Amino acid sequence: MIKASIIGATGYTGLELVRLLHRHKNVELKSLTSQSFEGQDLSNIYPNLKGYCFEKCVEGDIPKVVGESDLVFIALPHGHSVKVVQEAYAQGKKVIDLGADFRFDEGDIYEAWYKVDHGGKELLSKAVYGLPEINRTKISQANIIGNPGCYPTSIVLGLAPALKYKVVEPNSIIIDAKSGVSGAGRKLALSSHFVEANENVNAYGVGTHRHTPEIEQELGKIAGEELKVSFTPHLMPMTRGILSTIYASLRGDWTTEQVRAIYHEFYQDEPFVHLLPEGQWPHTKWVYGSNNCHLNLVVDPRTNRLIITSAIDNLVKGAAGQAIQNMNLLFDLPETTGLLSPGMFP
Amino acid sequence: MIKASIIGATGYTGLELVRLLHRHKNVELKSLTSQSFEGQDLSNIYPNLKGYCFEKCVEGDIPKVVGESDLVFIALPHGHSVKVVQEAYAQGKKVIDLGADFRFDEGDIYEAWYKVDHGGKELLSKAVYGLPEINRTKISQANIIGNPGCYPTSIVLGLAPALKYKVVEPNSIIIDAKSGVSGAGRKLALSSHFVEANENVNAYGVGTHRHTPEIEQELGKIAGEELKVSFTPHLMPMTRGILSTIYASLRGDWTTEQVRAIYHEFYQDEPFVHLLPEGQWPHTKWVYGSNNCHLNLVVDPRTNRLIITSAIDNLVKGAAGQAIQNMNLLFDLPETTGLLSPGMFP
Amino acid sequence: MIKASIIGATGYTGLELVRLLHRHKNVELKSLTSQSFEGQDLSNIYPNLKGYCFEKCVEGDIPKVVGESDLVFIALPHGHSVKVVQEAYAQGKKVIDLGADFRFDEGDIYEAWYKVDHGGKELLSKAVYGLPEINRTKISQANIIGNPGCYPTSIVLGLAPALKYKVVEPNSIIIDAKSGVSGAGRKLALSSHFVEANENVNAYGVGTHRHTPEIEQELGKIAGEELKVSFTPHLMPMTRGILSTIYASLRGDWTTEQVRAIYHEFYQDEPFVHLLPEGQWPHTKWVYGSNNCHLNLVVDPRTNRLIITSAIDNLVKGAAGQAIQNMNLLFDLPETTGLLSPGMFP
Amino acid sequence: MIKASIIGATGYTGLELVRLLHRHKNVELKSLTSQSFEGQDLSNIYPNLKGYCFEKCVEGDIPKVVGESDLVFIALPHGHSVKVVQEAYAQGKKVIDLGADFRFDEGDIYEAWYKVDHGGKELLSKAVYGLPEINRTKISQANIIGNPGCYPTSIVLGLAPALKYKVVEPNSIIIDAKSGVSGAGRKLALSSHFVEANENVNAYGVGTHRHTPEIEQELGKIAGEELKVSFTPHLMPMTRGILSTIYASLRGDWTTEQVRAIYHEFYQDEPFVHLLPEGQWPHTKWVYGSNNCHLNLVVDPRTNRLIITSAIDNLVKGAAGQAIQNMNLLFDLPETTGLLSPGMFP
Repeated sequence: MIKASIIGATGYTGLELVRLLHRHKNVELKSLTSQSFEGQDLSNIYPNLKGYCFEKCVEGDIPKVVGESDLVFIALPHGHSVKVVQEAYAQGKKVIDLGADFRFDEGDIYEAWYKVDHGGKELLSKAVYGLPEINRTKISQANIIGNPGCYPTSIVLGLAPALKYKVVEPNSIIIDAKSGVSGAGRKLALSSHFVEANENVNAYGVGTHRHTPEIEQELGKIAGEELKVSFTPHLMPMTRGILSTIYASLRGDWTTEQVRAIYHEFYQDEPFVHLLPEGQWPHTKWVYGSNNCHLNLVVDPRTNRLIITSAIDNLVKGAAGQAIQNMNLLFDLPETTGLLSPGMFP
Repeated sequence: MIKASIIGATGYTGLELVRLLHRHKNVELKSLTSQSFEGQDLSNIYPNLKGYCFEKCVEGDIPKVVGESDLVFIALPHGHSVKVVQEAYAQGKKVIDLGADFRFDEGDIYEAWYKVDHGGKELLSKAVYGLPEINRTKISQANIIGNPGCYPTSIVLGLAPALKYKVVEPNSIIIDAKSGVSGAGRKLALSSHFVEANENVNAYGVGTHRHTPEIEQELGKIAGEELKVSFTPHLMPMTRGILSTIYASLRGDWTTEQVRAIYHEFYQDEPFVHLLPEGQWPHTKWVYGSNNCHLNLVVDPRTNRLIITSAIDNLVKGAAGQAIQNMNLLFDLPETTGLLSPGMFP
Repeated sequence: MIKASIIGATGYTGLELVRLLHRHKNVELKSLTSQSFEGQDLSNIYPNLKGYCFEKCVEGDIPKVVGESDLVFIALPHGHSVKVVQEAYAQGKKVIDLGADFRFDEGDIYEAWYKVDHGGKELLSKAVYGLPEINRTKISQANIIGNPGCYPTSIVLGLAPALKYKVVEPNSIIIDAKSGVSGAGRKLALSSHFVEANENVNAYGVGTHRHTPEIEQELGKIAGEELKVSFTPHLMPMTRGILSTIYASLRGDWTTEQVRAIYHEFYQDEPFVHLLPEGQWPHTKWVYGSNNCHLNLVVDPRTNRLIITSAIDNLVKGAAGQAIQNMNLLFDLPETTGLLSPGMFP
Repeated sequence: MIKASIIGATGYTGLELVRLLHRHKNVELKSLTSQSFEGQDLSNIYPNLKGYCFEKCVEGDIPKVVGESDLVFIALPHGHSVKVVQEAYAQGKKVIDLGADFRFDEGDIYEAWYKVDHGGKELLSKAVYGLPEINRTKISQANIIGNPGCYPTSIVLGLAPALKYKVVEPNSIIIDAKSGVSGAGRKLALSSHFVEANENVNAYGVGTHRHTPEIEQELGKIAGEELKVSFTPHLMPMTRGILSTIYASLRGDWTTEQVRAIYHEFYQDEPFVHLLPEGQWPHTKWVYGSNNCHLNLVVDPRTNRLIITSAIDNLVKGAAGQAIQNMNLLFDLPETTGLLSPGMFP
């Protein structure tokens, strides 16, 4: 049994980790820490857990929590993970940070976009970007995982084959992404207030969203060259789900069939990434609650562009599910352990 | 392994059976029949199953399907189950009807409310009403299960302790129930059209809903006397979930604490029924996708009434999950097999 | 032109007043006060007003605001209206309080349910409960209007004819009410957080909601006797709308037709209250954005109960629209001025 | 008074025309035709009209309806307008077609994309594309108006200044558009079924949507050159609203400020088009139920692209409201008559 703890268990990502780990047969939950709810039953904060989870939230005594665990998940806002990662590293324990602090190769880029000091740049080179479909081998040998952002997950999976096989011009990429409101977390805000978010769609952070450099870093590695993308996130009146619609100019002539063949080959052995039949465009509800990523694409001969759409559940493949997929790799378990379930539809 | 088939696999209830049976370790799916989609991959009709379900829909050759199965689930509209049940009975196979045809002790009541000939009344006495928390022993010895309706499930669980212990006046019961739109199925209708159902709440079938006699039959058995209820269903702008708010006049003096004690005792060993802490009123989202039923109640001393609210997921505890719970009983498996999961929140 | 000011213009009720007054040809907006947004353009806070409303929010200098106005609308949380009403009364100006402070005949009941000192009980006898369909004449002669709560409006309109004509037993009344989230205002709260309210229904304040004594006071006056009701509010995953489902035992024998005739006669000249055809149950979306109240009812001969459903838009007939209807009466304008518009459907 | 009739009054667009014309002081409704509901009260089909609209639906005797009208609105599916337009033209009456049949300069393009014979190409040269902000003068002199599609309205308004002033490369334009479900009309379809559309986002018609040639035609005229766009529509879980997010490569160097100045000048006298303050991105709920179009934009110096978002209500500025704006121009009324209202928020 893997002894696992969660630092920051009472946000939506922490809760989703608990829900998913509950059905993972190789994990024993040790400590669930919470600043706001210390001493309370987690099932009192989240009554969906009533009868299933009997843990209490504990204070965040990091050395102690790390000490009793084989693995620590960090589900804190960015800027708060470094100390936990340092402690885990010092104690020789494995750690998966679901925040942004360990996703970047270069601390300067992190600091420029996140406007905080990193405080632990020396560990960045030890961390692996935890997108298993791209970095499977490295992940399995790592101790520190920077779990990808939700938007970048949907986007990198959507573009990886096209960039790797030089189907598209790297600097032509435009990504229009749509997210459910749970992506903004449980923190109260007017933009997440039901009355303001319901029956509404809007763009936000246009040209300035912090996932942009993460997307560019990872796509650039796959493309083998630096690139810049336009990335525009939008808020949707729904709880879960991200749909990324991706546009890119073709390098030379390609048919839909040819590009589909490349994607098919790239993903045919992947348990969680599914290229849908031609003409069947991904619906976020089809991956609701699952670790799946649904893809489809078309070459538009009128404009010589490739158009891809990619759907995930932001809390699962975009956060907690992917973290568990990474955990399975870290501990040499079958990668799909505890994660094989279809989306909940309807 | 139980060889199970589903007659009518392409409605929402059939789909939910497939989703839940997929993770049940003792079941092997044999035939999934469908009139409308014969020959098609189920995962093409419901792409959430992509990569998980490789079955094709087959035509409904009932003798053949029954013959190859240990158990048949019927997920057809009411009025279509009798032939399947007769065939199963003749072949000595077990059958769980998720429709209304085998829920009634008296065929005449069924015919009066459903306005169709039953056509198989001789089998009604062989059928058991499949609410495990009430009829566990009988279910385990039966061959034909009439799986309860979604509304009745939430209501009978909500009222059973109060009626059994004569806390309330049987004829004072008023039930105001709220359901998500999936309860109306996949059949296209204006009342299920997004644009008409969104941002809207309305009552329907006031005083005439077909679940009324089913509720009265089961509550009457628990109360030990005939009773009549007011039952008003409402449509909610959401996909899944039923919340039943139940009002009844107290017989004599009771405190909230006393009634809670009765409910606690009645349900303390039930894996799926949870009495929430005082003052924490059930939210349908807390049981979303799960087989759980959340209850709470209060005695209002101003009006001398007991008020109970009861939340379930109409497609799980209100249909497919309960059917699997019944299957576990029929085949002497632990009752919770394949069903132990918390609600998906958020 | 009526010079009107709004104290607390930046809540949803204040905003709805601005939206509706904008199309009222006899009103000139003077001051819009706001504690939080003083000095800002209202159209910057609420960009739907861009190009329509050019007012800035001002500080709440009450004597000055009252002095320059013929009428003051108060759209503050309860407990904050007394000083404004006292000032208006002293200056001989008219005032409509959209909060609860001037709805009660007896200050003690207010204080018992709202748990605050009233601080201006001497003015309660000068205030009129502003439900025009019931109190039209008194309103037209008053200076202080206690504008009804949203739930009470839907409920009193739903029950008035039945109580006045002694169709039902006063103490048998049970009200199950469903409200959109805007009823909870713009103040951030977990229960109004999109992710928690979406795809969810729950009861709240069971047996303890503050609208209970207001409902009882007004129904009691119509019935001519004191009465107690069960009132259970529920939160619905939608922005606007209240549906109240009302149950009451019949006094003697009544048919649906007879009760419909009473309701028809009671409301036939009312511009905003509409009894729908038999069997057509009110949908909240049908009154969305309008000052209308839709009613329907049925006598259930099985249980000898009358069941009524009543739909309003909580922000219009349940708040700002009704306030303007009251204003029209106060200033001897045609009562429907600025309010005649059908619900926005779809 | 303008005598106006609506051919096809019982779809959502027809209903919205009725709702908006109801408050237009210069219009008298003559005939409301309907194939499906002939002889019924419109307020019985759409009970939101109860007490406001007393018209009955009549059969579509086109010569008679045209004869008694000064203006005919056609709210039929594409392919059904030609006969009505021919009749109106023959009788010298004005006609506004809200469908696609009279939006194209070249019938061949219409036929290629819509896959039907046009049947009245000789009248295309008499028709004017009814986007008042672009074609105001021509509209006022026309007899046949092809009322723009909902997507094209949001897009052409979003791009007109940038194309006219050569800010962007015409062939670089990518449009990612998001629409509420009412855009798909009242016809029952699985994609508009509540349970399938709720909690879901998906692209559809990728590269093949019929609004593409309409967008290209109108943008091309403004740009002064032929162009091709990528246009991807998406379905959103909401009733009303379109948000178009538009990406285009800059021609030369531009700052956000410079482009804002161009947009400001272009639209400063427009009553319905509003450029929001820098950084305030359009929300569809802000224009809900109104004839307004909200715009904002930013120059992204990292990628040298202009990004614009444009929000309208698809049923108002995207259909019925724009038709009434055109009517006002046709009959020499102030263009804003009956249309000046802010969006309904919340």
